[in-house]
Amino acid sequence: MTRTNHSVGQVSPQRAHFDTPIKLRSGAVLPAYELVYETYGRLNAAKSNAILVCHALSGHHHVAGHYAGDPDSLGWWDNIVGPGRPLDTEKFFVVGVNNLGGCHGSTGPSSPNPATGKPWGADFPMVAVVDWVHTQARLADLLGIDSWAAVIGGSLGGMQALRWAVTYPQRVRNAIVIASSPRLSAENIAFNEVARQAILTDPDFHGGHYYEHNVKPVRGLRLARMLGHITYLSGDQMAERFGRKLRNDSLSFGYDVEFEVESYLRYQGDKFASYFDANTYLLMTKALDYFDPARERAGDLAATLALAKARFLVVSFTTDWRFSPARSREIVNALLKNGQDVAYANVDYPAGHDSFLMDDPHYHALVKAYLGRVTL
Amino acid sequence: MTRTNHSVGQVSPQRAHFDTPIKLRSGAVLPAYELVYETYGRLNAAKSNAILVCHALSGHHHVAGHYAGDPDSLGWWDNIVGPGRPLDTEKFFVVGVNNLGGCHGSTGPSSPNPATGKPWGADFPMVAVVDWVHTQARLADLLGIDSWAAVIGGSLGGMQALRWAVTYPQRVRNAIVIASSPRLSAENIAFNEVARQAILTDPDFHGGHYYEHNVKPVRGLRLARMLGHITYLSGDQMAERFGRKLRNDSLSFGYDVEFEVESYLRYQGDKFASYFDANTYLLMTKALDYFDPARERAGDLAATLALAKARFLVVSFTTDWRFSPARSREIVNALLKNGQDVAYANVDYPAGHDSFLMDDPHYHALVKAYLGRVTL
Repeated sequence: MTRTNHSVGQVSPQRAHFDTPIKLRSGAVLPAYELVYETYGRLNAAKSNAILVCHALSGHHHVAGHYAGDPDSLGWWDNIVGPGRPLDTEKFFVVGVNNLGGCHGSTGPSSPNPATGKPWGADFPMVAVVDWVHTQARLADLLGIDSWAAVIGGSLGGMQALRWAVTYPQRVRNAIVIASSPRLSAENIAFNEVARQAILTDPDFHGGHYYEHNVKPVRGLRLARMLGHITYLSGDQMAERFGRKLRNDSLSFGYDVEFEVESYLRYQGDKFASYFDANTYLLMTKALDYFDPARERAGDLAATLALAKARFLVVSFTTDWRFSPARSREIVNALLKNGQDVAYANVDYPAGHDSFLMDDPHYHALVKAYLGRVTL
Repeated sequence: MTRTNHSVGQVSPQRAHFDTPIKLRSGAVLPAYELVYETYGRLNAAKSNAILVCHALSGHHHVAGHYAGDPDSLGWWDNIVGPGRPLDTEKFFVVGVNNLGGCHGSTGPSSPNPATGKPWGADFPMVAVVDWVHTQARLADLLGIDSWAAVIGGSLGGMQALRWAVTYPQRVRNAIVIASSPRLSAENIAFNEVARQAILTDPDFHGGHYYEHNVKPVRGLRLARMLGHITYLSGDQMAERFGRKLRNDSLSFGYDVEFEVESYLRYQGDKFASYFDANTYLLMTKALDYFDPARERAGDLAATLALAKARFLVVSFTTDWRFSPARSREIVNALLKNGQDVAYANVDYPAGHDSFLMDDPHYHALVKAYLGRVTL
């Protein structure tokens, strides 16, 4: 087998329709739904080589490769998926899926509500991480995948990997949990709450039914993203990239951009608000806040994780203050307490929480080495 | 002399009018202005016992005591000012002043613009820390105070103490700089920028001329304060106070308050937005961002501080991540490099940045001991 290291190339999304009603964590029942997904590599005859990539707050199914005629449309984790890459598509069949409630093609708040024919908007039911896992399991059924070689994700994606291992222990052989946490802290929830309030109090939100008013709560969504971005980066990295650098040579004593960091945040906020759906953003932050699998075992994380049969790889980043290495170690320590099989690395990388998306040789080498030992 | 430890009791504000135009750091000239201030204790015959208390972002002149008929109207730093307290009013004459641009009685954006007769609004000139120091110096002239026994402040107030020591070296014998920083980091500026954008993009802001529309940008100001509050507390303290505690026993799967920390932030945001002026908030955050006295010496903090003649007391708090102990040590190290007289304490207290407002015995004992040695 030739071992190259390049992208999976041209890809195209697929769509799966599910007609069996699903009862969600909130108690609401969704009568039917669609999931949009992509696959890279080939499913082997034993159907034993599939890896599920779970996305974080603003991610989606387009994990790797590019679309026809658009070489710049690279997937959000293209650097880790491909022939010879850590998620080696010469060995593995990799699946990316847009989560239920998303805004990239799967059924979500902007989809038509069958009861009204109008977009669901704020009436779309709240989704929890466990709901995503159940819908992903139905997609696995459809693809004929009994058990994943691995479920992998960063941040909120890592929470899905953790949930998979606990909820479907027979169907996950390896769980790779990166830059994640067993539950949000009060401070994490507080940041999410400010972001939500920015959206909910935007006059263009219209109680979540802005689609019907032909407006979008772009001001609120922009603020939410600006705030989010501060928590994705490390203070040191911001100091190095921006410091106190001014856009112009001197202060202008006004509220236009003066410092470079202001320009960066406004750009990120504007870009995000132009394409992302505010109702999906709200749902995603709530799924983050709610995630706490140990709650079902009176807060005992070890007792919860004891349900899992998977081997674990847990990765944190030294400069991540959103989900600090200490949060990853809570997971590791709970697994060790149970005598479960876990590898852990705290990677020294400067990019804060966003490090999990970066092409760091040490980080990629360890994911590659871990997956290289996975037998099919 | 009896040594008790109680409040200064009933106080009342005073008002000073200044008719000499002042040229501000921005280049703008303010033809006249008023400052509202309070004093506690008695100025001695030599006028050598005066302490200036500088306020932070949301503070004002009402530092200690209470107003007639309102025993609950305690000043914001009442716990440190009074007979027998660290700023001992049996020894010192303590002055609190609302800064120029404020919203508690001194001339600011809600004051009438003499050119139009309407509130200044967004046309009020930007103010810098050095402008506050110059106007405070004029107040000192009015009170007959040639030199302050001490200038003291926390956070943005500490920046004023630092500025005083550098700008009027002959007029400050002791500078007490608490929970402060020689300049904001990119991350500090980033948080301020999100807060400003929340206000500036609130449809009720009306370009800063909301007074004329009989509305206030309460949504934006509320978000700014919620975000601010996260940075004033420590993560550990939030974990201890709120953790993942729910308002009710179970999740409600909606956007009303679910977690206690959400309730706390909304309450703080609502309260603040009901009384504070949004234009003042914007000005204060800009004064924070601009503060960088070392910029005048090509970034050399030691060269800048070498101008000072004062003795220094620098205090940081272990759990402060807004202005971490490392920021205080930058000041201390620059002073030590110059062989200047500085005492430094890093106080172990859990309340994050807000620790400087707290009644911690160790913290208060060290301020008291320092001021006890000050000769008049």
